[in-house]
Amino acid sequence: MEKEEKKLSILVSNDDGILSEGIAVLVRELQTIATVTIVAPESQQSAVGHAITVHRPLRVREVKKEDQFFGYAVDGTPADCVKLAIRHLLPQKPDLVISGINHGSNTAVSIIYSGTVSAATEGTILGIPSFAISLTSFESNVDFSYAAKFARKLAAIIAEKGLPKGTLLNVNVPHLPEKEIQGVVITKQGKSIWNDEFEARRDPGNRQYFWLKGELVELDVDEDVDQRAILNNKISITPIQFDLTNYEMMDELRKWMIEP
Amino acid sequence: MEKEEKKLSILVSNDDGILSEGIAVLVRELQTIATVTIVAPESQQSAVGHAITVHRPLRVREVKKEDQFFGYAVDGTPADCVKLAIRHLLPQKPDLVISGINHGSNTAVSIIYSGTVSAATEGTILGIPSFAISLTSFESNVDFSYAAKFARKLAAIIAEKGLPKGTLLNVNVPHLPEKEIQGVVITKQGKSIWNDEFEARRDPGNRQYFWLKGELVELDVDEDVDQRAILNNKISITPIQFDLTNYEMMDELRKWMIEP
Repeated sequence: MEKEEKKLSILVSNDDGILSEGIAVLVRELQTIATVTIVAPESQQSAVGHAITVHRPLRVREVKKEDQFFGYAVDGTPADCVKLAIRHLLPQKPDLVISGINHGSNTAVSIIYSGTVSAATEGTILGIPSFAISLTSFESNVDFSYAAKFARKLAAIIAEKGLPKGTLLNVNVPHLPEKEIQGVVITKQGKSIWNDEFEARRDPGNRQYFWLKGELVELDVDEDVDQRAILNNKISITPIQFDLTNYEMMDELRKWMIEP
Repeated sequence: MEKEEKKLSILVSNDDGILSEGIAVLVRELQTIATVTIVAPESQQSAVGHAITVHRPLRVREVKKEDQFFGYAVDGTPADCVKLAIRHLLPQKPDLVISGINHGSNTAVSIIYSGTVSAATEGTILGIPSFAISLTSFESNVDFSYAAKFARKLAAIIAEKGLPKGTLLNVNVPHLPEKEIQGVVITKQGKSIWNDEFEARRDPGNRQYFWLKGELVELDVDEDVDQRAILNNKISITPIQFDLTNYEMMDELRKWMIEP
């Protein structure tokens, strides 16, 4: 490849772990336009939310693939990986942080629990344009190639346009061949929640334990909602932020005149 | 105590663990106005964010104090505790969920990492008015009594007024005697972030490991910001939400005309 004036630098992380296929396919695609550094969890970290590790130290391992240095594995969460990468491992801040490609969707209330989103959130907190990308299929055999291609395209767009401070993008790509994708929709986070159940079982010692199970219950009707875009075979892009303040409610609460 | 027509029912959780002093003092105070059920983590769960446990089952232990049943300890996160309580352990939904009293503040970007806030967020997701309460001192010997008294007062107010769907309150109480508290401020989440550093050390086997350290760097100047309220010896109440959509950015992104 010919030398460019200044090559884009991208930090990649995820929550499925450094050895997952989703991150490998993403990195291969991004390397055509950027210098990519991978800092990802040693092991699967689904539903860790925006956890960081504060009560024990972190360890970092250099991972090779086919005798070539591939990336850094951290025995922590996705947010740990991005924090450690930007604050310590990388010689300078990357131009972009991309988290994924997650194997499974991250929409509606699930983005609160998502390790994939949290890696991109941490990039945003540290002042770097960031996005999370997920492939919306939980089947065991999936094809990440189109999602990776779209990630590369979006990375180039964001590198040019930037993102406002404090805002990241949460991207969900339907698991379909490229020609069946019906478009891109800018969406809001859905209101759907999980109908959680806990299945009680007994271990061989007759002690009870509980498995969480459930599914996302569709509560949204608007077309510009993340989960609905996917059902319509469209790519969903949701701009999200980590300022959680409900500004309207501030005025209402002031009227309550709460005293110490 | 005389019988009331319908006594308030409150679910209490935290992230410091079921044996922490903060939860004990809170519960003692709330029991003067409500039937309280405690479902809290077995162990300290700081900085777990909104993690839930999906790859292993949960165990529940009945905890006694002075030969009396005190509450349920769960070997999971604060969000696990609230989910399990509401979806399985409690015979009916509580009127309120209160998380705390946390030993240490939860303000600015820290609320993203906070297990205390996540317990109240989970209550809100499940449709119950909820708040998180923290005492803003990290000293080892602290007095939770005034914060508990304020929690009781706020619980009574919320039981009467309710909270809008999808909104919870994040409360921080300065560690001061009651008469030195200068008021209550309705605040927004601050923009301050941590100046994280990783301290690299070597173990006896000469392998490197990294400790996260750092402090919150004050970036806010407005008086109605969580962290500043506390510095002014005031109680901070921030209404927060788990809809992370940046609605303004949706219009901007639509102009980008992103194609698949």
